[in-house]
Amino acid sequence: MRNHYCIIMAGGIGSRFWPVSRNAKPKQFLDILGMGRSFLQMTYDRFAQFIPKEHILIVTGHQYKDLVKEQLPEVSDDRILLEPFRKNTGPCIAYATYKLMEKDPGASVVVAPSDHLILNDGELLRNIEAALELADREEVLITLGVTPTRPETNFGYIQANKAKPTQIKGHVVYEVKTFTEKPNMELAKVFVDSGEFYWNSGLFVWSLKAIDKEMSRLLPDIYTLFRNGKGIYYTTEEQAFINNVYAECKGISIDYGVLEKSKKVRMFAANFGWSDLGTWESYYIQKEKDSSGNVIDAPVNFLKDVTDCVVISQDKNKLIAIKELKDYLVINTPDVLMICPRNEKTVKQVITDISLSKEEKFL
Amino acid sequence: MRNHYCIIMAGGIGSRFWPVSRNAKPKQFLDILGMGRSFLQMTYDRFAQFIPKEHILIVTGHQYKDLVKEQLPEVSDDRILLEPFRKNTGPCIAYATYKLMEKDPGASVVVAPSDHLILNDGELLRNIEAALELADREEVLITLGVTPTRPETNFGYIQANKAKPTQIKGHVVYEVKTFTEKPNMELAKVFVDSGEFYWNSGLFVWSLKAIDKEMSRLLPDIYTLFRNGKGIYYTTEEQAFINNVYAECKGISIDYGVLEKSKKVRMFAANFGWSDLGTWESYYIQKEKDSSGNVIDAPVNFLKDVTDCVVISQDKNKLIAIKELKDYLVINTPDVLMICPRNEKTVKQVITDISLSKEEKFL
Repeated sequence: MRNHYCIIMAGGIGSRFWPVSRNAKPKQFLDILGMGRSFLQMTYDRFAQFIPKEHILIVTGHQYKDLVKEQLPEVSDDRILLEPFRKNTGPCIAYATYKLMEKDPGASVVVAPSDHLILNDGELLRNIEAALELADREEVLITLGVTPTRPETNFGYIQANKAKPTQIKGHVVYEVKTFTEKPNMELAKVFVDSGEFYWNSGLFVWSLKAIDKEMSRLLPDIYTLFRNGKGIYYTTEEQAFINNVYAECKGISIDYGVLEKSKKVRMFAANFGWSDLGTWESYYIQKEKDSSGNVIDAPVNFLKDVTDCVVISQDKNKLIAIKELKDYLVINTPDVLMICPRNEKTVKQVITDISLSKEEKFL
Repeated sequence: MRNHYCIIMAGGIGSRFWPVSRNAKPKQFLDILGMGRSFLQMTYDRFAQFIPKEHILIVTGHQYKDLVKEQLPEVSDDRILLEPFRKNTGPCIAYATYKLMEKDPGASVVVAPSDHLILNDGELLRNIEAALELADREEVLITLGVTPTRPETNFGYIQANKAKPTQIKGHVVYEVKTFTEKPNMELAKVFVDSGEFYWNSGLFVWSLKAIDKEMSRLLPDIYTLFRNGKGIYYTTEEQAFINNVYAECKGISIDYGVLEKSKKVRMFAANFGWSDLGTWESYYIQKEKDSSGNVIDAPVNFLKDVTDCVVISQDKNKLIAIKELKDYLVINTPDVLMICPRNEKTVKQVITDISLSKEEKFL
């Protein structure tokens, strides 16, 4: 459709995939799974199947401009929105929203993270098309919920109001009761067993009009700051204006700032093989394992009594010789060697500790 | 003394120090402890204090000729004896013996490994001087025994006949009852408690005449092969002759071939801070440890909950980040990363396994 757009959020730093993902080249720019395209490229390819390419915007950190241009050379500069700082998804979406309103206030948009794994593109696109149709005709904020397959403690959950389902083009749509941040394992099990809870995929569909109204009501500060750019977007003043706005505005997620508080939220219940692939653990879960439960991506290796490990080496000439290791990550990049238990909390703690240490430059 | 010589045996491949020690540059050519000189250089320096430099011979593998010349540029080619194959210490000593006999049949020699650690040079030299004096006047084969300080299972032991000690220049000299290969821990404890057993340092002193006689009697094959070189040593034919001899002769240690069977063996009981530094475990024992019991030689590191490990990295720009590891070796060289329990048997097994694998080229 002519007035359908896609906003790809590509400003993350993917720190939990350290040391493969680095501040200078985070996860969305990497082909961590070895699929031949980076996450960002796969995301772009996915939406370019049914949204005009010139309607796809990338919002990213200013330092990643060259990476975006290198990986997506066909995206023109005015469609690469550069954030001077990371301020979470609220300001990111506000920026794209009010820039787009300058040109096409009647548009509907898909908002998509750039670094998630989606195994069933076709199913996703069918959901998105139906959601766009709904967004075109009703002032709702649509979020894509994924039927959970395990009690995952690393995802946010959406509780659907299963009493009042509606349908559009064969897709079930629910009103939403609650949004929940990452639960503990006990709660996650209750969620999954209940049948009411879905994983929050971070994929949203709405009309500019709908998000504009809810922002003005629920995030008035951010609304005002970005709305004031009217007449400045698409001019040579835009970047300076945005730099000032970002310096002033608070950092807040769209989930917390708008979705949790709005009555206009609707959820599609979908199954498109989704994972946010947010951690090494999710990488481990995703990848095929050898007979010892290892995920090995080390061209030259000699492993003995190594079980349930992730072993990655980016040096194709180096022998990685490991004896007796279980449930560890061994990740060798050109300037970092990490050896750490695979356990998510431990990995996160190590990365946090390094960020506070004098080796912080290696992040 | 004019007719004192030193034979430095430098043909080992130091495989148990892999991956720092490599076939292409084994342990004796390395400065593993960070002392500023390689083991070979330290050995040379030690004996050059009291043996004329032109009386010091190096026996090594043909592939190490350039390394010897690079590390000891003052040693002339005729004093670098090149073995075409490794055949243990028997042939190595026979070669040097019969070559020296060509020039100076009345000589006495010190035979020394090139890759051992000696902390008290002064004490060693006092023992060697006394031993040379004894060798000059009696047809005996002198071995230097080291008073054991722990029940070490990686050394050979010499059992002294404590009933009949003699003395020379204040040094106690014993006749020898038995030679024992590496004992198990139980036996090693009995040895140490008995007060009769000494570590076999592999340092020998004897006259050419004495070793010639015992070789002719106990290793007649080897004796004949090398003795037949009379008139060929120091000529352009020497290397071709030696290559043929080595192809024919058996591999056997001087301990097993001569010392265990000869009645002419005498042992000096000495304490010169000796270790053969034959394994990573002995390296670990030798080096100073931090408060967590680690030996760290990795310029850039971030270690958390790492205890009783050896962490070595030869890349001075690479961050070595390790979390939760105990009793491991982590050794990063330009082309090998080894992660392995510190346990000696395990390390040895890994290296053996690699030697039998398709990654054998990394040894």
